[in-house]
Amino acid sequence: MNDDGVPPLPDLLALRTDRRAFLSRAAVLGTALPALGTALAACSEPRKAGDTDTHDKPQAPEPGRDRPPHEHGNDDAAPVGAGAAGYTRYDPALPPAGSARHVQVRMTVKELPVHLNRDVVVPAWTFDGTVPGPIVHVRQGDTVEFTLDNQGTLPHSMDFHAAQINPKVAFRSALPRQSLSYAFTPRYAGAYLYHCGTQPVLMHIGSGMYGAIIVDPPVPLRPAKEFVLVHSEFYVSKDGKGGWQFDYQRMLGTLPDYVSFNGIANQYMDDPIRVKQGDRVRFYLVNAGPSHPCSFHIVGEQFDTVYLGAPPGNAIQGVQTFGVAPGGGMIFELDCNVKGEFPFVNHGFGHGQKGAIGFLVVE
Amino acid sequence: MNDDGVPPLPDLLALRTDRRAFLSRAAVLGTALPALGTALAACSEPRKAGDTDTHDKPQAPEPGRDRPPHEHGNDDAAPVGAGAAGYTRYDPALPPAGSARHVQVRMTVKELPVHLNRDVVVPAWTFDGTVPGPIVHVRQGDTVEFTLDNQGTLPHSMDFHAAQINPKVAFRSALPRQSLSYAFTPRYAGAYLYHCGTQPVLMHIGSGMYGAIIVDPPVPLRPAKEFVLVHSEFYVSKDGKGGWQFDYQRMLGTLPDYVSFNGIANQYMDDPIRVKQGDRVRFYLVNAGPSHPCSFHIVGEQFDTVYLGAPPGNAIQGVQTFGVAPGGGMIFELDCNVKGEFPFVNHGFGHGQKGAIGFLVVE
Amino acid sequence: MNDDGVPPLPDLLALRTDRRAFLSRAAVLGTALPALGTALAACSEPRKAGDTDTHDKPQAPEPGRDRPPHEHGNDDAAPVGAGAAGYTRYDPALPPAGSARHVQVRMTVKELPVHLNRDVVVPAWTFDGTVPGPIVHVRQGDTVEFTLDNQGTLPHSMDFHAAQINPKVAFRSALPRQSLSYAFTPRYAGAYLYHCGTQPVLMHIGSGMYGAIIVDPPVPLRPAKEFVLVHSEFYVSKDGKGGWQFDYQRMLGTLPDYVSFNGIANQYMDDPIRVKQGDRVRFYLVNAGPSHPCSFHIVGEQFDTVYLGAPPGNAIQGVQTFGVAPGGGMIFELDCNVKGEFPFVNHGFGHGQKGAIGFLVVE
Repeated sequence: MNDDGVPPLPDLLALRTDRRAFLSRAAVLGTALPALGTALAACSEPRKAGDTDTHDKPQAPEPGRDRPPHEHGNDDAAPVGAGAAGYTRYDPALPPAGSARHVQVRMTVKELPVHLNRDVVVPAWTFDGTVPGPIVHVRQGDTVEFTLDNQGTLPHSMDFHAAQINPKVAFRSALPRQSLSYAFTPRYAGAYLYHCGTQPVLMHIGSGMYGAIIVDPPVPLRPAKEFVLVHSEFYVSKDGKGGWQFDYQRMLGTLPDYVSFNGIANQYMDDPIRVKQGDRVRFYLVNAGPSHPCSFHIVGEQFDTVYLGAPPGNAIQGVQTFGVAPGGGMIFELDCNVKGEFPFVNHGFGHGQKGAIGFLVVE
Repeated sequence: MNDDGVPPLPDLLALRTDRRAFLSRAAVLGTALPALGTALAACSEPRKAGDTDTHDKPQAPEPGRDRPPHEHGNDDAAPVGAGAAGYTRYDPALPPAGSARHVQVRMTVKELPVHLNRDVVVPAWTFDGTVPGPIVHVRQGDTVEFTLDNQGTLPHSMDFHAAQINPKVAFRSALPRQSLSYAFTPRYAGAYLYHCGTQPVLMHIGSGMYGAIIVDPPVPLRPAKEFVLVHSEFYVSKDGKGGWQFDYQRMLGTLPDYVSFNGIANQYMDDPIRVKQGDRVRFYLVNAGPSHPCSFHIVGEQFDTVYLGAPPGNAIQGVQTFGVAPGGGMIFELDCNVKGEFPFVNHGFGHGQKGAIGFLVVE
Repeated sequence: MNDDGVPPLPDLLALRTDRRAFLSRAAVLGTALPALGTALAACSEPRKAGDTDTHDKPQAPEPGRDRPPHEHGNDDAAPVGAGAAGYTRYDPALPPAGSARHVQVRMTVKELPVHLNRDVVVPAWTFDGTVPGPIVHVRQGDTVEFTLDNQGTLPHSMDFHAAQINPKVAFRSALPRQSLSYAFTPRYAGAYLYHCGTQPVLMHIGSGMYGAIIVDPPVPLRPAKEFVLVHSEFYVSKDGKGGWQFDYQRMLGTLPDYVSFNGIANQYMDDPIRVKQGDRVRFYLVNAGPSHPCSFHIVGEQFDTVYLGAPPGNAIQGVQTFGVAPGGGMIFELDCNVKGEFPFVNHGFGHGQKGAIGFLVVE
């Protein structure tokens, strides 16, 4: 037992892919947590050995299918339950940091269906009901006082990449209907990932549990229109009931079905990010992965500055495309001197073509 | 209609993978463009659902096959039609930049068969008949006056990564037998990709439509023997008539069949890049992808300088291998003080072993 | 014949994937080298064309299998022969560099079974009997006098990424029961890969033939606890006799079965790397690949310094995660001011989840 009264099981740090232990542990938890078995099944349904067509949906959209997943209509979509989030564009604008040097951040784990595009809905594990979770914006040296309230049916936890802290204690898992708290002080500025660190981490990231924490340097960067883009991959299969589910085996196969900025494929094509001619624009690019780099590029533009490490140093100039590692973050800046409609993309198109594109409109 | 009289359809910026729209649009175009149906079929032939052997060729060369694609003889190769390009080594030497500050660049889209190695020939979409297209060499601040003449059977366009320009206008598609023009002024020096930006971009890059534009800084870099290497992947399948075709489904599968420098697997093993002892050598490495990084390395050497961003700044020293993102470019320099035969490779060998190797011979 | 009396066959530099040539050459060698056929078969056994279940083991652990490879017991493991190495933790501590400026380094090629985790044992090709091979630690400007003694059954060679040398001569292959020698002087400091360069290189790296050579700069870096982590992927299949074998086709498929630091999945979870609070810690991260980047991250920490090129320059500060290319190396530093148990991981979890995790314990 730790100071939150949460037994350290399943232990965050037991990250190894020990499925026997994981499943037997899950079975134990299943007694106390009726929804666990279903949730686990949805996320790790085994393939049958003799299955020649081992996959209900193609690894990529196929012209020969009557309803490829990237365009199937609502009649084919998962039934959206009472708790389903509607289709809502994720606001990419960086919210301002408050003036307090002690920042209270509270998030609630919510397991609920989310949209991967306008039509595809899938049961997800979320921080505060959206994928990605809310944008956290603080300053280097602030004290972040964080509380996680687990209203889900499984153990979950929180790993802030901006924290220097003992993960065995701080990033432990909270059981359902329990909460945990810890505080940390970001030492470096930058664009950082946060994510659930409960094992298997691949499954928790792959099911939607991540977001961005932006840390300002002591002397603010020059004024700019600031946006946060969390890049991530999604791996899904049919759930046997007409809907879709996240699929752990497909996560391990590393060929994603959707690749998105801020959780919804192509959302900024329909509803672009808009700035004015002459604006300086700063993208905080956080790559949740779980597996592939994001080769970030803006069609028709170059970045005058890319921060590979903590700003205001660690910058390179004159960059067409730079790869951000899964689990990493970088800051991309440009002066929008030219009017137009500029697609921003993951230029690794085999993956990026699956939804990692949006418009930056300069008016 | 825009000022070239080209209807903006299919629109460059509609990059999303909306296949219903794409195919219905293609059907419309097909009326006017008799060859379109065939070309599209060659590039996106659907797999049949019940197919247990869903792929005519293996994902990688197999010893048990009588004629693996990396070594099959001419009798098995695609019949080379009247329009086929012969096997010609791509000259990697950087051509000199002219003295004019207004540079006319004109390219013609040609759809014709190209060699992926000595034996494998595949119908491709090209700029000026080769994959990659011609090397463009200009200086920072030059005005590049570009014209694309589309002599192909499909809409095509041109996206220069060195341009700061409204892509909705400049990078629009030209219909067959039409042309388009625009001008731009590179703001940064470096090794930049150009490629067709017509949707689906993955298909157009994967079918051969890319090349390199090299931009010199205002003060030239120190003299060197300069070479351009465009790294790219190829995804092919049998066309059912004894030949090979580019395969969009395999592009989406991201496991390439060939990986090459300058379009032809292993071409610089047979006919190396040759320099003299004491030469300084500069490689402009542009990675067309479409999907994987190129982990560039020279066996038996290190790079004294790698420019991560625009030269002459943004350099790191003492590098064995550095990854160039798909859609990106970097400049790699070394002093060739040692005589010998130095293989240059993509050290990500699972892909690189498929043709991304050549010799730098120091005499 | 060269000056070591070793016929240059198979030639190091004939790296192309020319399997006809490779196999016919192997057949010739097979006459002289009775074990070759078996060894090659183990490493490149063809898949049968009509095989719907083309793979004896899953591409990733499956809950539905009674004994997924990541957890199967000893009864299912390969019989460990007389020559088998026992399960031994690979010591990650950087051994001190000697005082001599002429450093003798001798390695012996040994083909013997090694552990990929506690249970899975696979016949490997090794330098000195372990995967990775021994850590070499020298200083910039030292003369490294290297000898390779091939006690294996196949031709093998040695490619030091820290050497500037003609690879056609130095990195040639030694036939079984023969040796070769060469000397080199590292020009740059850093964390470098060494590996067998005999073709196909993918097969030799994939079978265990690599390690790290660490080169100190003339002025030593500030004192630190120094560790070497060689990141690599393993591709295996059943050998038909109850055991496992490395599988060249799976290497070409690029979906690894295990991903490890220093050759054994999760070994530093059971037996962590331990330092004291207040220690400065330096990781020399070398990525042997053969195919994927390593997105290096420490849970609960950030790196204050990452050297992208040769130290003491070429550093960036304030980094959560950075990708190291296959065939590359970087140096990661942090001050361990916080006590705790910090998992270090490849944050590309689709691969990293397969064993690329360990603990850094700060006491």
